Amino acid sequence: MNFLEERILKDGVVKSGNVLKVDSFLNHQLDIAFLNRVGEELRARFENKEITKVLTIETSGIGMAYAVAQAFGVPMVFAKKAKSINLDGDMYVAQVETFRHNEVENIIVAKKFINEDDRILIVDDILANGCALQGLIAIVESAGARVEGIGIAIEKGFQMGGTVLRGMGYQVESLAVVESMNVASGNITFRQQ
Amino acid sequence: MNFLEERILKDGVVKSGNVLKVDSFLNHQLDIAFLNRVGEELRARFENKEITKVLTIETSGIGMAYAVAQAFGVPMVFAKKAKSINLDGDMYVAQVETFRHNEVENIIVAKKFINEDDRILIVDDILANGCALQGLIAIVESAGARVEGIGIAIEKGFQMGGTVLRGMGYQVESLAVVESMNVASGNITFRQQ
Repeated sequence: MNFLEERILKDGVVKSGNVLKVDSFLNHQLDIAFLNRVGEELRARFENKEITKVLTIETSGIGMAYAVAQAFGVPMVFAKKAKSINLDGDMYVAQVETFRHNEVENIIVAKKFINEDDRILIVDDILANGCALQGLIAIVESAGARVEGIGIAIEKGFQMGGTVLRGMGYQVESLAVVESMNVASGNITFRQQ
Repeated sequence: MNFLEERILKDGVVKSGNVLKVDSFLNHQLDIAFLNRVGEELRARFENKEITKVLTIETSGIGMAYAVAQAFGVPMVFAKKAKSINLDGDMYVAQVETFRHNEVENIIVAKKFINEDDRILIVDDILANGCALQGLIAIVESAGARVEGIGIAIEKGFQMGGTVLRGMGYQVESLAVVESMNVASGNITFRQQ
C-alpha cells in the first residue's frame, strides 16, 4: 500500500452517491508536504517524458497541479470554467459535461499558453467519468500540442474514465485506484497496481 | 523596484475597466519559481507571526496561497464559492459582493478546518475593493480564530480595499501597489513602499 492509499484509509470518508471525501488533505484543506510528495511520485512515473507544461482545470486540481509542475520545474496552466472578464478573446474552448451530468459547460485556456511545441502532462485530483480530462485533451489537440500523459491522485476504478482514457492510448498514472467503497461500513478497497 | 513590480512591467497588460492582466505568471499560467519567491517574501514580511494556516478563496488565489503555505510549512485552506456536493453541512458561511458588484454570493469553509487556536494568514493574488477578503475575515472570526495578517501580490492602490483593511487594524502586506495605470499608454506606476 502506498502513501496515498494509506492516507485515504486514514482520512478519507465514504459518502453516498459514490463520493469519497478527501477534503482534509487534497482539495479543500491542502497538506502541502503531502501534495509535494504526490508531485514527486508523478514526476517519477513520467520520468521518461520531456514535459514542458502541466495542465489542469479549476478548482480542485490546482493545488496538486502546482506540486506536479514544481516537481518537473515547468509552468502550470489551469483551464477556467466559463468566460472570465480577465481573459482575452483569443482562447481554446472545449465543452465538458459536469459532474451531475445535467449540463454542459465551457472550459477555456488562453491560446498564448499552449503552443504546438508543448508536451503536456494533464493532472487532476480525482478521475471518475473522465469528462473534464476529455475536455483538457481536446484543448491540447486544438493547440497542436501533445498529451504526454495523465497524472491522477485518486481514480474511481468502478467508473469508466480510466478505462476509456487508457483505451485511447494515453499513459494514465493514478496513485490510488479505488476498486470499491461501501457507505455503510466505510470500507475502501484498492486495485493492486 | 522589487521583483514583482519588475515582472508586472515586463508581462502585465493594462486593459480597460481597471483590469491588470497578469495571467501569464500569476493566475492562469503559473510561474512556479516566481510564486515560490512571492511565498518566501511574504513569509519574511510576517516572520514575527506564528502562522498556523493560510486561507484564500478560489480560484485565482490558490496557486499563490500554495506557495505561501509551503514557505511557512503550514496547511492551506481555500474557501469555496457556493455549496458543493462534496462539502459537509457543517461549514462557516460569509457573503461576498462579486467583482461586478451586481450580485452577492456565499463563500464557505468546512468548520473542521479552522478552529479557535488558529492564527490565520489570509492571502490573495489581487486586492481591489477587498470584498472577498472581508468575507474571509468574517469566516475566521466565526471560527473564533485570529487573523494575523493579509498577504497580497498586487494591490490596486486606487481602489479602497487596502485603505479600509489597514484602517481596521490589519497588517496588509502587498508586494506591489499599483498607484495608477493607463490603458492608452500602458503605463503603470507603483506606490513607493
